[in-house]
Amino acid sequence: MNIDEQLSRISRGTEQVTPLDALKKKLEKKQPLRIKLGMDPTAPDLHLGHAVVLQKLRAFQDLGHEVVFLIGDFTARIGDPSGRSKTRPPLTTQEIAKNSATYFEQVEKILDREKTKVFYNSDWLKELSLQDTIGIAGKTTVARIIEREDFATRLKEGVSIGLHELLYPLLQGYDSVQLQTDVEIGGTDQTFNLLMGRHLQEQYGKEPQVILTMPILEGLDGVQKMSKSLGNYIGLAEPANDAYGKIMSISDELMLRYYALLLEKSDDEIKTMQVSGTHPMQLKKELAHGIVSRFWSEKEADAAAEQFTSLFQEHDYSKAQEVPLPANSPIWIVELLKEIGAISTSSEAKRLISDGAVSIDGAKVDDFKAEIVCTSGMVVKVGKHRIYKFS
Amino acid sequence: MNIDEQLSRISRGTEQVTPLDALKKKLEKKQPLRIKLGMDPTAPDLHLGHAVVLQKLRAFQDLGHEVVFLIGDFTARIGDPSGRSKTRPPLTTQEIAKNSATYFEQVEKILDREKTKVFYNSDWLKELSLQDTIGIAGKTTVARIIEREDFATRLKEGVSIGLHELLYPLLQGYDSVQLQTDVEIGGTDQTFNLLMGRHLQEQYGKEPQVILTMPILEGLDGVQKMSKSLGNYIGLAEPANDAYGKIMSISDELMLRYYALLLEKSDDEIKTMQVSGTHPMQLKKELAHGIVSRFWSEKEADAAAEQFTSLFQEHDYSKAQEVPLPANSPIWIVELLKEIGAISTSSEAKRLISDGAVSIDGAKVDDFKAEIVCTSGMVVKVGKHRIYKFS
Repeated sequence: MNIDEQLSRISRGTEQVTPLDALKKKLEKKQPLRIKLGMDPTAPDLHLGHAVVLQKLRAFQDLGHEVVFLIGDFTARIGDPSGRSKTRPPLTTQEIAKNSATYFEQVEKILDREKTKVFYNSDWLKELSLQDTIGIAGKTTVARIIEREDFATRLKEGVSIGLHELLYPLLQGYDSVQLQTDVEIGGTDQTFNLLMGRHLQEQYGKEPQVILTMPILEGLDGVQKMSKSLGNYIGLAEPANDAYGKIMSISDELMLRYYALLLEKSDDEIKTMQVSGTHPMQLKKELAHGIVSRFWSEKEADAAAEQFTSLFQEHDYSKAQEVPLPANSPIWIVELLKEIGAISTSSEAKRLISDGAVSIDGAKVDDFKAEIVCTSGMVVKVGKHRIYKFS
Repeated sequence: MNIDEQLSRISRGTEQVTPLDALKKKLEKKQPLRIKLGMDPTAPDLHLGHAVVLQKLRAFQDLGHEVVFLIGDFTARIGDPSGRSKTRPPLTTQEIAKNSATYFEQVEKILDREKTKVFYNSDWLKELSLQDTIGIAGKTTVARIIEREDFATRLKEGVSIGLHELLYPLLQGYDSVQLQTDVEIGGTDQTFNLLMGRHLQEQYGKEPQVILTMPILEGLDGVQKMSKSLGNYIGLAEPANDAYGKIMSISDELMLRYYALLLEKSDDEIKTMQVSGTHPMQLKKELAHGIVSRFWSEKEADAAAEQFTSLFQEHDYSKAQEVPLPANSPIWIVELLKEIGAISTSSEAKRLISDGAVSIDGAKVDDFKAEIVCTSGMVVKVGKHRIYKFS
């Protein structure tokens, strides 16, 4: 590909590439560029929201560039010294290694592992002294840091910010100085931190990185950011059939968004699709097949499509996913949903039941406290597109 | 002295002792307390403004307590990493040692050097890592730090604050954690920093220090803080005669303030003085004699008083301070004033001349560019109370 084709390939679907002309200049050197993605080793479960960024990295790899993962183990290892955050206790080296391993197992679905380098920022951050820290902190101003959206909001609302928290974006930026990255990629919510890396590289007299942000993918509800804690996600480690079913459950509007962000369709391609007269159900099937092909495999996509047609269009439950009978019966409905793998938290179960989205052998379950007597062949339906059958 | 007498002695002339009951409890232990004064090794020239704090330390020594000087060599040695402050370039170890030596030569006029310990904060700060720094920073909040008056003003006015600057009050506080100080003393402009020491000691589970602030002494102009850069100061290293003369030049109002802060007179004593009917000139002479006795010696005070009477009341210049004839003559008036030691900066000369405060053999010098032909016996008068005679 020539430079302009590379630029166009890289820019597709991005929210921002800043500055674009700097990226062009970097590409013109015809040297492999170093592309950085920062990763927090506390949350190893990847979902399609992460895939948006990861497949952009894959595009860079396909163009011959080098992808580096920066694992932010330093702060994960020290935890929150203020003791304010219960959600971020310090992690042990073993936990970090385990989380990273889980993470990369999933990343391999998208990236070429051979062309991916991994760095741990504790390698340099643990060597820094107070004097070094003052040197780094002196490269930026208080005003610049506290204008970061979340800091500004917390200050305004009187929600306390530990002084150490101001150092974190700086350290993230310092990682880019150490790694001499050419491009750093992240979601739009990372814009400030990515710019800090660019700023610090300039301050240290290095060629500053280009920052590339990807839109944030909405979850199945079409409103909130896809996230595990909101339960509106499609995990990369989920069975292909479940992923397919979940995609079939999204709104027609969100479908177009997924076409753009997950299948990298251009605006023109999407418009053409809209005016083609194809039935939305057909378009959604193509989307589901496309996504499962891309992030799982084509074979799994074919099987999922076939199963979907049998179950939901032909109502033939012979191909429903078989799950073992629970050991104890009667069993609380929430325990049952957990055991068959339909949910991971009780609050998810509560929401589904109150939405009337859980049924057993065609009868809606509307009591959160229901005790279910399970029998072989019994069919449990969860949401619009997940069906389980006891073997 | 019993506890209440000690408390009263310590509290006299202070702006604030916080909390007073904690100081009482500390004194009740009947163990020598550790009293800290922080010192910046960049400015070794002490003046009467410093004496206000130093003689409070002397009072502690006289009560059997231990005085520790904390020399802030760590930050002095690293300078300002932002490169914004031209007035604070990094100092070498030699410069710091030299400045400290000069400082303690002057301190000896007031303190018992034998009962004074000296610490350098680089001893512990240079050992701290980034991780330690995050730990310390996590003990306080952004809101608490940026409410410091100067930070708040700079933020409001859009004057940039280097992020590292937020760390400095924290480090100053951490010194108190290391030194386990019972009391920290400073001018009222240090209140925030002293409280930070108290806060951090609490955070580290230590008995928190009491903070004791002294009022800021106004300079000879009676308006601004006494400082070398404003030229409104009386240096502890100046000749006693000059100090005496400068004190005689202050306003009657400022005289009462100096009685309170430098001779530690109580409000009652000052009121008695005011209604005694004594002529202000006599009161001022007693003040000048008292201050010179206290910070120089009684003998020097007697000699200065005698010289003052001859020169300014009897106009007998035979006792004027003799200075050698300048080597080159005619000489620019500013050079001349510098050579005889009347001024240290050209701007000081400019101000004095434009105020009509410089005269030669009775004739006012009103031209800043004047060239003076010097002759033996010529009398140079600077301000109201400094007279020099060429030998």
